[in-house]
Amino acid sequence: MPAPIAFWFDFSSPYGYIAAELIDAVAARHDRAVNWHPILLGPIFKQVGTAPLADLPLKGDYAKRDFARTARYHDVPFRLPAVFPIATQVAARAFYLIADADPARAHDFAKRVFRAYFADGRDIADAEVVMALAAEAGADTQALVDPLKGDAVKARVRTEVENAVKAGVFGSPYFIVDGEPFWGVDRLPMLEEWIRTGGW
Amino acid sequence: MPAPIAFWFDFSSPYGYIAAELIDAVAARHDRAVNWHPILLGPIFKQVGTAPLADLPLKGDYAKRDFARTARYHDVPFRLPAVFPIATQVAARAFYLIADADPARAHDFAKRVFRAYFADGRDIADAEVVMALAAEAGADTQALVDPLKGDAVKARVRTEVENAVKAGVFGSPYFIVDGEPFWGVDRLPMLEEWIRTGGW
Repeated sequence: MPAPIAFWFDFSSPYGYIAAELIDAVAARHDRAVNWHPILLGPIFKQVGTAPLADLPLKGDYAKRDFARTARYHDVPFRLPAVFPIATQVAARAFYLIADADPARAHDFAKRVFRAYFADGRDIADAEVVMALAAEAGADTQALVDPLKGDAVKARVRTEVENAVKAGVFGSPYFIVDGEPFWGVDRLPMLEEWIRTGGW
Repeated sequence: MPAPIAFWFDFSSPYGYIAAELIDAVAARHDRAVNWHPILLGPIFKQVGTAPLADLPLKGDYAKRDFARTARYHDVPFRLPAVFPIATQVAARAFYLIADADPARAHDFAKRVFRAYFADGRDIADAEVVMALAAEAGADTQALVDPLKGDAVKARVRTEVENAVKAGVFGSPYFIVDGEPFWGVDRLPMLEEWIRTGGW
């Protein structure tokens, strides 16, 4: 079995969302699994010395246009949320709790979180919305209530962010396949060519 | 005749170089002319609040890998120059002086400057190297000597940079076609699809 594709993203990242809609088909074409890693870009941007794309002069306006254009290009429903970017700690914590019980369910949950935010404009910073999405994904939400408030899952998310930085991750989406890093949904064709050819 | 593609770039931009190697074929497939605009990213980065890609923690290492990988992907010869980034004022000034006499020659000169720097490792900050490349492009270099030192061409480059910012340009390569902006050599497939379909 070839190595899985590692996939890092922030639930507040439009390009991360589009990548989440596309990566399964890429992986399936090449018999690869995908390991999903929601992270928090805030602390990473501080280390890299950058800021959220949409906040930058000139670049921000272009980015907003490009988010929507790229989504339409890939037939992915998209509407820039009224509150953007948004806090994604709760969603990331819920993801890892669900993943500990069932990685496939966590994967489904992640797609629901992204769509809730970027297609339906729901407030994914709200723990009640996150719980509703967990329920839609079939998770045992009663079992999530206490752990979601606990220190263990906060530490878990921090560790995931630290591990991401150690792996070189500085943005979303970020992929590593067979040791090769790819940043951005626009690198998916290259990622696929890399898998197909073994690199160049 | 459909509107030309506007193409902004800094001679010190690896992705600008790769785009310069690819854009003519894209334009030819769709009967478009290309208007080349060398600019200086330094003053623009100050306004946008960003820094040269290769200087950023994490992102810089990735970028260097991606420059070379993207060049190989497109069969463009590339070697990251020992001095990178580099001052490109002289090359930009020479470009506009040559363009005033003959735009097609300036276009050829621009490709020579890019290749000299990114394929052959020549010092394009050096006025003698720039003059040699102008001669290779068939320009009357004797007629360039004095204007290249004059204030008029400095003001011309400043105006080009100001106009670029007014048009929304914040990076290299940057294209506008039929009013639609595209940033990055990785947006060329989308730019071409935009021309083909009239947008989506």
